[in-house]
Amino acid sequence: MATPVTIYGPPLSTAVSRVLATLIEKDVPFHLIPIDLSKGEQKKPEYLKIQPFGQVPAFKDESITLFESRAICRYICDKYADKGNKSLYGTDILSKANIDQWVETDGQTFGPPSGDLVHDLLFSSVPVDEALIKKNVDKLAKVLDIYEQKLGQTRFLAGDEFSFADLSHLPNGDYLVNSTDKGYLFTSRKNVNRWWTEISNRESWKKVLEMRKNA
Amino acid sequence: MATPVTIYGPPLSTAVSRVLATLIEKDVPFHLIPIDLSKGEQKKPEYLKIQPFGQVPAFKDESITLFESRAICRYICDKYADKGNKSLYGTDILSKANIDQWVETDGQTFGPPSGDLVHDLLFSSVPVDEALIKKNVDKLAKVLDIYEQKLGQTRFLAGDEFSFADLSHLPNGDYLVNSTDKGYLFTSRKNVNRWWTEISNRESWKKVLEMRKNA
Repeated sequence: MATPVTIYGPPLSTAVSRVLATLIEKDVPFHLIPIDLSKGEQKKPEYLKIQPFGQVPAFKDESITLFESRAICRYICDKYADKGNKSLYGTDILSKANIDQWVETDGQTFGPPSGDLVHDLLFSSVPVDEALIKKNVDKLAKVLDIYEQKLGQTRFLAGDEFSFADLSHLPNGDYLVNSTDKGYLFTSRKNVNRWWTEISNRESWKKVLEMRKNA
Repeated sequence: MATPVTIYGPPLSTAVSRVLATLIEKDVPFHLIPIDLSKGEQKKPEYLKIQPFGQVPAFKDESITLFESRAICRYICDKYADKGNKSLYGTDILSKANIDQWVETDGQTFGPPSGDLVHDLLFSSVPVDEALIKKNVDKLAKVLDIYEQKLGQTRFLAGDEFSFADLSHLPNGDYLVNSTDKGYLFTSRKNVNRWWTEISNRESWKKVLEMRKNA
């Protein structure tokens, strides 16, 4: 590969870390441009040309620019199918669809309550609304009850191999488990805890956490 | 094709309609099993084997069962690439990624405020919370301001061809425009209005609305 791909955004961002973990799993060289959100760099005209909503991450590879972390990850897996972890997003239409339904479950069902909790407990500048926290804890608990059943049947969400479906949960899961008092939602559930311990110890994820420390 | 695919769920559901519109665009024969949500059919053990969260739609094709509407649509486009509208989800890795970033924008940015408005204004059994409605209207207005810019540059979201990116917005958009008093959010924006008129007049979408009437 002549030119590394470029990812724009701070590694502290959950959506940016999702893309970083994918790039590392796929062994795709990248160049990180750490957009400074506190300086409003994500709202500058040059950046808005790539990411019109003024959010992170944005992404560039040869002639294409992209936004939305899960779309970027799918692209990386498709474009660099033969590199790194070759089964990360499946190896055929059936395995890919099986993984994708759990990526969508992250985006639509696990992500909203866990992302809101991470935001409200760690990154918000306004006082915590306890009723809202409880509402999201209850929502997430119900979701994780179903994960508990599923992970009693298979080692990972989409079967017996680690995939993009598991990876997609790492960014919000990590903050909840390691930086809030809501980690019990994961650790109190036997199968979820086993799964979480295994996926959060992937070398790729440890490298993302290392990048955060050095950011 | 020997056996039609099966989709489980009522056509009134936005997520079910997304899959129906995709099946019709792709000219894939299907069998609809209209799960009755008022009778709690989505919580029955047999159904939960396919859709563990007890939501609609669920989907079956030969040896695979799937849930999550956007994952089902991606599968249909990949599996039946040569049928019906062949460019619905792009024809190569680049065009697919370009479409996918707008499908994700639907799921992550347009979908949450518009889905909440549709739910609260049309399907909720509790009194409307005006402050929450205003919050979601304001959120959606900001999103549509950016769509307005984008649709001033290209005819459709992912370029000059209708795609899965546009289709994915139809279910929530249709309820907002035709069944609530929030349609002005679309019609007051010149480019959004032009786009909306064009995509909501697709034969595929009209057929979905017809299925709702007959449901």
